[in-house]
Amino acid sequence: MPYAFLDVRKTESFLEVILNNPARRNPLSSEMISELVSVLATPEAMDSQGIIIAASGRVFSAGHDFSDMMDKELAVLRDLMHACAHLMRSLQRMPQPVLAKVQGPAMAAGCQLALSCDLVVASENAFFQTPGGKSGWFCFTPMVALTRSIGRKRAFEMLMSGEPVPAQTAYEWGMINRVVAPERLDDEALDLMHKVTQGSPQLRAMGKKAFYTQIEMPLDHAYRYATDMMALTGITEDPQERMKAFVEKRPPVFKHQKKNDAAPKPGKKMHKYRK
Amino acid sequence: MPYAFLDVRKTESFLEVILNNPARRNPLSSEMISELVSVLATPEAMDSQGIIIAASGRVFSAGHDFSDMMDKELAVLRDLMHACAHLMRSLQRMPQPVLAKVQGPAMAAGCQLALSCDLVVASENAFFQTPGGKSGWFCFTPMVALTRSIGRKRAFEMLMSGEPVPAQTAYEWGMINRVVAPERLDDEALDLMHKVTQGSPQLRAMGKKAFYTQIEMPLDHAYRYATDMMALTGITEDPQERMKAFVEKRPPVFKHQKKNDAAPKPGKKMHKYRK
Amino acid sequence: MPYAFLDVRKTESFLEVILNNPARRNPLSSEMISELVSVLATPEAMDSQGIIIAASGRVFSAGHDFSDMMDKELAVLRDLMHACAHLMRSLQRMPQPVLAKVQGPAMAAGCQLALSCDLVVASENAFFQTPGGKSGWFCFTPMVALTRSIGRKRAFEMLMSGEPVPAQTAYEWGMINRVVAPERLDDEALDLMHKVTQGSPQLRAMGKKAFYTQIEMPLDHAYRYATDMMALTGITEDPQERMKAFVEKRPPVFKHQKKNDAAPKPGKKMHKYRK
Repeated sequence: MPYAFLDVRKTESFLEVILNNPARRNPLSSEMISELVSVLATPEAMDSQGIIIAASGRVFSAGHDFSDMMDKELAVLRDLMHACAHLMRSLQRMPQPVLAKVQGPAMAAGCQLALSCDLVVASENAFFQTPGGKSGWFCFTPMVALTRSIGRKRAFEMLMSGEPVPAQTAYEWGMINRVVAPERLDDEALDLMHKVTQGSPQLRAMGKKAFYTQIEMPLDHAYRYATDMMALTGITEDPQERMKAFVEKRPPVFKHQKKNDAAPKPGKKMHKYRK
Repeated sequence: MPYAFLDVRKTESFLEVILNNPARRNPLSSEMISELVSVLATPEAMDSQGIIIAASGRVFSAGHDFSDMMDKELAVLRDLMHACAHLMRSLQRMPQPVLAKVQGPAMAAGCQLALSCDLVVASENAFFQTPGGKSGWFCFTPMVALTRSIGRKRAFEMLMSGEPVPAQTAYEWGMINRVVAPERLDDEALDLMHKVTQGSPQLRAMGKKAFYTQIEMPLDHAYRYATDMMALTGITEDPQERMKAFVEKRPPVFKHQKKNDAAPKPGKKMHKYRK
Repeated sequence: MPYAFLDVRKTESFLEVILNNPARRNPLSSEMISELVSVLATPEAMDSQGIIIAASGRVFSAGHDFSDMMDKELAVLRDLMHACAHLMRSLQRMPQPVLAKVQGPAMAAGCQLALSCDLVVASENAFFQTPGGKSGWFCFTPMVALTRSIGRKRAFEMLMSGEPVPAQTAYEWGMINRVVAPERLDDEALDLMHKVTQGSPQLRAMGKKAFYTQIEMPLDHAYRYATDMMALTGITEDPQERMKAFVEKRPPVFKHQKKNDAAPKPGKKMHKYRK
């Protein structure tokens, strides 16, 4: 175990990375950031079907470590902020889905970390907060993730008021994917991770990359990109097998599909959309 | 009736285009796409006050026809995808409002078709699904429409999990405009179509074009465009008549307004926003 | 009192600007626009901690004054529209939070005025409406603000149908921040204004500017901007004091923080997010 501030657990198909400095509320210290960047670059991470970012203790993460930033030179702060933004963007650049499992408050850069993951499952106990604005600073970098997750009026209020937004409200706003009872958190996170890792990892990686790329393009460019991706991937093995299996009414056998861990035990009632 | 896969019905003011290959779940085959592009280019379509895209049978549309794409060369897939994206963009380029009346599942390119319409009214039975990701491919082109309709976290989950989203949830997310009981679908779609076709068709066409154009601009450019449109249209006949009628407390008589079909029978309770 | 159409009230820390032409439903006449631009440029406005835009009478604002636009030359309309767009953008360029307190219908340019404020608190009686489309014109400029506040399907329907959207629905859509009983409107608006003006005004001004700037950037540019802002502001006095006070477990004393008005009386139950 080479990490001082992380607990890393590998199952057959997923990698769970647990922020593990609960006594200090899992701060995104420069060491923690550095370890997170490192773990994402390991073969274990690259090869996993999905990555879960979790945390130990009562707080998901309280954000930056003030001792990294107090009485420091500009160069030190700049390096820290660049490293942190690099981490956040790495989460989107990973080929597989990355899910934040938020068991408690996610504040400032901790809120940014959760929202920078592709998916978020939170406990009812959790809240999301960008407190900088009310306390003499401003959450400039968390804002980048926040304003790309929810509408403007709500984001402006969060950033200026610094008020915590309960997980239930965050769910209603579309900021997160699930809100569940604390004792259901692990199962629901695992259930969602299973749901998003059923197909071909190769196609999924191209899909994730295209998701974040085309979302910033004008419609015209987005369609030029997406039609080429659709046509070019369509002649590859897995999509061809998928179509043949459908027409021949048999289950598909994918060349690039990996075996997943067992899904959470059946009999448990998982999240359902309102019908 | 020159269409093999469409049923086209013209009322006094609206054109209803019905996908009509229910035995095969109304696939967006290259022929169906081709017929849809054709019908949108007819004088009947161009002159109508509004266009309704509907479907016969239990499924709105299951998406592409696999037999168009199995064991085909790249050029064939590319042509198909270009034709399909062209259709989707044509819906936005039509001068009048286009409304999808979704009576059942709208899947993959079928989901894209519904969301590419300006407005969507769906039956409670309907669901919206982008299943590519879970089955060995990825819904690259439906993603373009989906990510411009709802927030990122929800869109990412839909694309990666391939799970169906019930019409009720889609409504709560703002993906669609109405969710109604199956037996109310026709009336509610007609009611909404009436509501969005009351003014001057000339101004409406300019409004629709400006809607999709300015939405992709930075605020500064959007205001330069919109202020010019406001001023330039403001000196034309219909807006001048509208203001004069208001000031003179009489009903306006528009030069460019066409007579609409009769509205759905009164006495029926239509959709209302929550007060 | 130099304003013909405004009532301007200064408290210790906030400026309340009240549209005051209730007999004519507070139209955004060229004079009203001109006075609003003027008041925003006064030292009282620049120095205030927050600005509230309110209105007297039953209607917030019915939009443009038709008598400014009837039988006028293009140049007149163009100047009016430019002045109006300039006003709307000035609200975002003010260094402090600007809150619309909407006591009644906000229509056309009146809807644009409310949505162009950073925050909106509305009475249950209020509604939001862009009626141009149904009455022979089109709300081109209000559309710019509206489409940046809510999703596309809902915005398209509002613009084309011209139907009023009740405050409760607007709140559920994320278009506004609070919906409250009429008799609670003043207190809730004041409460929210207090919440968003607790920190350093200097940092808040930089935060607000960064909010509207980075929101239009691609993610990559947004992070380059935000990381620099985070590092550069981080070496200034207020953020340094904020961190030291936290570490030393004492209340911070900010150099640039101004004293706020007294908050609304305690004991009153203010808006809470759903938990």
